[in-house]
Amino acid sequence: MKAIRLLEWKSEPVLADIAEPRPGPGEVVVRIGGAGACHSDLHLMHDFTAGQLAWGPPFTLGHENAGWVHALGEGVRGLQPEQAVAVYGPWGCGTCQRCLAGVDTYCENLAAAPVPGGGGGLGLDGGMAEFMLVPNARHIVPLPPGVDPVDAAPLTDAALTPYHAVRRAWPKLSPGATSVVIGIGGLGHMAVQLLKATTAARIVAVDMRAEARALATDEGADLALAPDEDAAERIRHYTGGRGADVVLDCVGNDDTLALGAACARSLGELTIIGLGGGTLPVSFFGLPFELSVQTTYWGTRPELVEVLELASRKLVRASITTFPLSEAPKAYRKLAAGELIGRAVITP
Amino acid sequence: MKAIRLLEWKSEPVLADIAEPRPGPGEVVVRIGGAGACHSDLHLMHDFTAGQLAWGPPFTLGHENAGWVHALGEGVRGLQPEQAVAVYGPWGCGTCQRCLAGVDTYCENLAAAPVPGGGGGLGLDGGMAEFMLVPNARHIVPLPPGVDPVDAAPLTDAALTPYHAVRRAWPKLSPGATSVVIGIGGLGHMAVQLLKATTAARIVAVDMRAEARALATDEGADLALAPDEDAAERIRHYTGGRGADVVLDCVGNDDTLALGAACARSLGELTIIGLGGGTLPVSFFGLPFELSVQTTYWGTRPELVEVLELASRKLVRASITTFPLSEAPKAYRKLAAGELIGRAVITP
Amino acid sequence: MKAIRLLEWKSEPVLADIAEPRPGPGEVVVRIGGAGACHSDLHLMHDFTAGQLAWGPPFTLGHENAGWVHALGEGVRGLQPEQAVAVYGPWGCGTCQRCLAGVDTYCENLAAAPVPGGGGGLGLDGGMAEFMLVPNARHIVPLPPGVDPVDAAPLTDAALTPYHAVRRAWPKLSPGATSVVIGIGGLGHMAVQLLKATTAARIVAVDMRAEARALATDEGADLALAPDEDAAERIRHYTGGRGADVVLDCVGNDDTLALGAACARSLGELTIIGLGGGTLPVSFFGLPFELSVQTTYWGTRPELVEVLELASRKLVRASITTFPLSEAPKAYRKLAAGELIGRAVITP
Amino acid sequence: MKAIRLLEWKSEPVLADIAEPRPGPGEVVVRIGGAGACHSDLHLMHDFTAGQLAWGPPFTLGHENAGWVHALGEGVRGLQPEQAVAVYGPWGCGTCQRCLAGVDTYCENLAAAPVPGGGGGLGLDGGMAEFMLVPNARHIVPLPPGVDPVDAAPLTDAALTPYHAVRRAWPKLSPGATSVVIGIGGLGHMAVQLLKATTAARIVAVDMRAEARALATDEGADLALAPDEDAAERIRHYTGGRGADVVLDCVGNDDTLALGAACARSLGELTIIGLGGGTLPVSFFGLPFELSVQTTYWGTRPELVEVLELASRKLVRASITTFPLSEAPKAYRKLAAGELIGRAVITP
Repeated sequence: MKAIRLLEWKSEPVLADIAEPRPGPGEVVVRIGGAGACHSDLHLMHDFTAGQLAWGPPFTLGHENAGWVHALGEGVRGLQPEQAVAVYGPWGCGTCQRCLAGVDTYCENLAAAPVPGGGGGLGLDGGMAEFMLVPNARHIVPLPPGVDPVDAAPLTDAALTPYHAVRRAWPKLSPGATSVVIGIGGLGHMAVQLLKATTAARIVAVDMRAEARALATDEGADLALAPDEDAAERIRHYTGGRGADVVLDCVGNDDTLALGAACARSLGELTIIGLGGGTLPVSFFGLPFELSVQTTYWGTRPELVEVLELASRKLVRASITTFPLSEAPKAYRKLAAGELIGRAVITP
Repeated sequence: MKAIRLLEWKSEPVLADIAEPRPGPGEVVVRIGGAGACHSDLHLMHDFTAGQLAWGPPFTLGHENAGWVHALGEGVRGLQPEQAVAVYGPWGCGTCQRCLAGVDTYCENLAAAPVPGGGGGLGLDGGMAEFMLVPNARHIVPLPPGVDPVDAAPLTDAALTPYHAVRRAWPKLSPGATSVVIGIGGLGHMAVQLLKATTAARIVAVDMRAEARALATDEGADLALAPDEDAAERIRHYTGGRGADVVLDCVGNDDTLALGAACARSLGELTIIGLGGGTLPVSFFGLPFELSVQTTYWGTRPELVEVLELASRKLVRASITTFPLSEAPKAYRKLAAGELIGRAVITP
Repeated sequence: MKAIRLLEWKSEPVLADIAEPRPGPGEVVVRIGGAGACHSDLHLMHDFTAGQLAWGPPFTLGHENAGWVHALGEGVRGLQPEQAVAVYGPWGCGTCQRCLAGVDTYCENLAAAPVPGGGGGLGLDGGMAEFMLVPNARHIVPLPPGVDPVDAAPLTDAALTPYHAVRRAWPKLSPGATSVVIGIGGLGHMAVQLLKATTAARIVAVDMRAEARALATDEGADLALAPDEDAAERIRHYTGGRGADVVLDCVGNDDTLALGAACARSLGELTIIGLGGGTLPVSFFGLPFELSVQTTYWGTRPELVEVLELASRKLVRASITTFPLSEAPKAYRKLAAGELIGRAVITP
Repeated sequence: MKAIRLLEWKSEPVLADIAEPRPGPGEVVVRIGGAGACHSDLHLMHDFTAGQLAWGPPFTLGHENAGWVHALGEGVRGLQPEQAVAVYGPWGCGTCQRCLAGVDTYCENLAAAPVPGGGGGLGLDGGMAEFMLVPNARHIVPLPPGVDPVDAAPLTDAALTPYHAVRRAWPKLSPGATSVVIGIGGLGHMAVQLLKATTAARIVAVDMRAEARALATDEGADLALAPDEDAAERIRHYTGGRGADVVLDCVGNDDTLALGAACARSLGELTIIGLGGGTLPVSFFGLPFELSVQTTYWGTRPELVEVLELASRKLVRASITTFPLSEAPKAYRKLAAGELIGRAVITP
């Protein structure tokens, strides 16, 4: 079958022929309907050298995947051939308490994972191919009615990641609370929709691009601001002086983290989602009292079930542009050039 | 000033002249903008005799009140004359741990309350008058922008009561969950709006009246059913066999309680809001496992703040019909006859 | 191998020879170290007839099991031969959201479970034999240091069941709160220990037997009462008039449920654990406001991990009397006659 | 009456005569039984100059206070003369939502507080005098049975502050979890007791002083370590490689914060309690995933009620050394010299 492969570090992916996978006991082969092209794939192509990670090329790209059950390994129960499914991307050891709860993201026995800290499209063969091998049936999540694999693929990451951050903040997002989303890109525009769908909190969107702010407003943001010098002050004013209860920083550089801290409320929450490489210095008198600061990485399997339910109810939807498998390299080039609106989804 | 007074048990209220109240230390006099006429007032007129309650007539009716600050007693801080405010209706002792947290509904020292188990319009003079004395400034909640006292009055009870039930059920109302509201009257139609505004759960409305079902659908219910024999079965089918995660019974008679239990999911929640006089027999094998069953009474002061925020953001709104003070008896007659759509609000 | 078998409904179990089990893909065979003899086994022997349950004899008894890994089926990872383990008893379908979270107790696809509503010792062969087949490795929980299979066996049920009820009540069991345990038998004496170990709440034990009350006091109860007419009043007095925040009824007959409701606090929690066959009528004015009433059934897999941690830290321990496999019938006779102190554990 | 007064910045406190306070409406005068001498008082004497704070000398020292009700202002209800009480120290505006919930620590209208960011002993007259004026009766917390004002005084700060941090971490402190307390001084030794009393988590104490480690072990710590280079590694080993679920840093300098981050578990919690002046740089790959980092300041009024309950049940107790009022300067000198064991309490 055809697949988009990364053959070595510091290279562009290529279209290549590989053998079709067959499922062993407990495994599932998925016929791919959609595989999202993610910014982090660009990092894979350009920023790593041998030895930095516990895994490396060659492998098929694509870590946001959905499709239909093609073949079931021995002992797999609860799934039917041709059933539409999404693939939960983080693959842990499967036996630690966290994996058993569907929190593979924070697996505590990575040495026993299929690939330590990686997964399909991240060291193992991913979804930019006709078929994909999923090493454990528990990573398969059936699609609810009305959700197409092409639409579902980007939800498994671009929606799941901010959903995890929004869900943990629910207790602070009561009516009267204010949330701030910094960076209205692939994750940020989903964060706005997820906040709108699951809470009654006010939503402030921050982005330097006018069209991104307009998108945020369309999707339910109550206020959209550029990250100007007075942005923190304007947010504080908008909240009657109190500050934002929850800040989701989908950029994560020094400036956005500083803005997040400056506009936050005491007892609030600031979550670093974006991989912008920034650092926030935390000290007793340097931040609002009891503002909790944390990173977050992807989401849990039960949360993916809920994200798909939201899509089934038409409460969230990712903007996508589709490309056939052979044009995946072109999709990545457009992604790198900033020419894409919404998520690129490869449809093998 | 003029006031609508209940002069004795088993009587109709009358328009009478009484002295204007003046605030003592810590007290506040509110100039009333709106006072809701509630079904429970009809019970006061018709169903009680001397000695049944710890309090009794004569008193001014009206326990759903909002208006403007008219006069502040000595020592009151944080309020300004003419400020628009709502009155939090349940008045406890003010010194037990629950009252200190704004949970006057479940005061544990009722003997020290202004009137045990009552309040303004319930033993003490209520809001169907030009002015109303509120015995403690902590019962005053400022109105947020865009909320008029006439609109706010019914929110202090008809919205606050279901909001308390909805809010306690939030952890069970994740995306993919289903809520059922039985009885789409004054409280039930607010419950639908509150569920829609604060959760992504599916909403099923149950009412025997087609127009009430139509109202529920307009306000966001995903499914509206008559309480026919197969209602529980239809809800179970709608939820893929699992049952409803949360049932809010705004009627509360034997039949609706049985329906609620029959359609509920294990680990779910069934809250009895309506005063329909019913009883649900709870036994080990008689209900879904770990279905939690409880009553609920009115709401807390912090919850009233949140309800008013929801109104300020136009996420909830009560349907109202206004009457001048002199026509309050007529409003009650129409209420008793079932001729009112939405809540009657008296505007002195 | 030898096994204690129930050969037909309405019969005593017998010692019989059966074939040793061998593990298929994903399965595990456990060499049994201890298998608890439970009161519910007496019901199995005496109270059922063909057709009442989805399963029936012949099968090996024993649903509280621990031992050592004997043989691993194909594809099982994360376990080592001879590793000491407990068996999580409730076996659901393994693919619904609840089973995936380790909440097999409330599986929503029982038709796909190994046996609908049963498990090892409940329709399938249990642990009163040298070896036991566990149909899915996810039901195996490694024993932490210092916990012997003989001690662990009764913890999988007699401790896990009240632990589930205690854990769900934690938010209400803050310092200053009062818990009431009704019935200080196998489950109740564990409930007292679990409350003591995991909360700072006061503990009131209720039992008609003086020696059971003495046991409760030894294990940390602050007050022990007989269920006399004035018991509710004494509990209310003990709590300064407020009532008990949490009541765990390990008996569950009409009288104990009425006592639980009479001594409970508004906003409290009453959980029906015991299978005493009682019914509690719930109505608006019949119970303290917002007292939540629910049953509970066994516990979750993650909770079993925590129970075993408590045992490892010597914070809980079951009183046990051991019997060799051949004397299991004798153990059941003593159990039926009320001659046992603590739990009988069969050690094959 | 006699009082220990700070007359100007950069000076030692002196014993002086001032007028006895009299209560205005809503106020309470407390006859002081005990007033704790806190490290932060040393900062007041030595580290501030005019204009740095919104308040300044002269004032009576003592912000950890308990005693007996001496005189009640007009309108105060729920208190009796001679009743034993503690004084809740943080005094906010009293009308914002947080103050209304007893969270004066994070008052959002400090301009309307009795003194912005201060209180009794912090700009206003504190408890190192025969009598103390408390400007609002809601700051008075009755002492439960068995708690003496001398014992209660230090609990209002040295216990309340770590209790707030422990309580917010309860959901992460399930059995099997590990907590780490860094710095076993006034707050740290209470933290150990509070963890022991309210959770079943393992407790690791870290202090460079052998006698402090011995104290921690006496009070329930499972492991006590010096903050050596391998401390983080040893904690990680002790937790089976997972790391600590909750770290309470009662020192708060750069080194202890780095240690806390190095030994923490992903999804854990690191709370900065000590005013050691340190900074922790937070970045995406610099800390365990989703470790939440926050400061904490004092505690809430409802939490003080719970702390006193724990003392009443003998589950926590502060080590104290008492001094008469005239020897308060000596107590501060011993405190500055590190010659005190436990808390110094002045007994006027």
